[in-house]
Amino acid sequence: MSIYLKKSGEYMETCIFCKIVKGEIPSSKVYEDANFLAFLDIRPLNKGHTLVIPKKHYETVLDIPDEDIKEMSHLIKKISQALSLAIAPDGFNIFCNNNQAAGQEVPHLHFHIAPRFMNDGHTFKWSHGRYKEGEIELIQEKISKFL
Amino acid sequence: MSIYLKKSGEYMETCIFCKIVKGEIPSSKVYEDANFLAFLDIRPLNKGHTLVIPKKHYETVLDIPDEDIKEMSHLIKKISQALSLAIAPDGFNIFCNNNQAAGQEVPHLHFHIAPRFMNDGHTFKWSHGRYKEGEIELIQEKISKFL
Repeated sequence: MSIYLKKSGEYMETCIFCKIVKGEIPSSKVYEDANFLAFLDIRPLNKGHTLVIPKKHYETVLDIPDEDIKEMSHLIKKISQALSLAIAPDGFNIFCNNNQAAGQEVPHLHFHIAPRFMNDGHTFKWSHGRYKEGEIELIQEKISKFL
Repeated sequence: MSIYLKKSGEYMETCIFCKIVKGEIPSSKVYEDANFLAFLDIRPLNKGHTLVIPKKHYETVLDIPDEDIKEMSHLIKKISQALSLAIAPDGFNIFCNNNQAAGQEVPHLHFHIAPRFMNDGHTFKWSHGRYKEGEIELIQEKISKFL
């Protein structure tokens, strides 16, 4: 992954989310503290769809410090609770797309929390693959080596 | 949400992921500690697609204690790093479906980490809504009240 190439100060100056943090672009904030900001996605999957971002510019989950991802996940739980109370959905998705190949549109780390309703018409249109015989063990070994 | 109705001991006895934790059903584990388990999804979006679960039976993110979601997010970051090193994808999705309406298939909290490749054919087929004038402010206020 070439995520490190783009992390110049120049790049951060053009980042939409950095501009939202600085107040240069308006947003519908639902939460803010010293390190994080949560605001409504203006193109929601369903109403109440919220984005949670660190104020500091990190591109993906791989870049944020361990202590910060812990705090961020706690905040994501809190906002999920608030959304559940405020919107009363039948469920919700939490997702984070890392890099363009994964559908990341703004290269500033963000988690989506999207309220869902039974039969709301949104579906995952993702096909599932299969492992050939012996292949899953090879992949398992490959990943385990780094853990 | 009616998530609390199903939390009986009887229910947990039939939970596939609880059975994987207990070793009653085999899995391709890539990581295990006292509180968490990570194993390969047998129907992967792409090869290396990993599921991270708490060993204890919680149904959704709303149910897991704060300290545990913090540890879990740290582990998700670690596994994302391991996947990136082992599989060298162009990106990856992290997602967690909460409740059936959100596409949760096994009602035992789990985060997906799915490696992605440019033009791998997987896309979000989700349509985006719009807020009517004045509506976003109402939703913003509703959610903020609980934060």
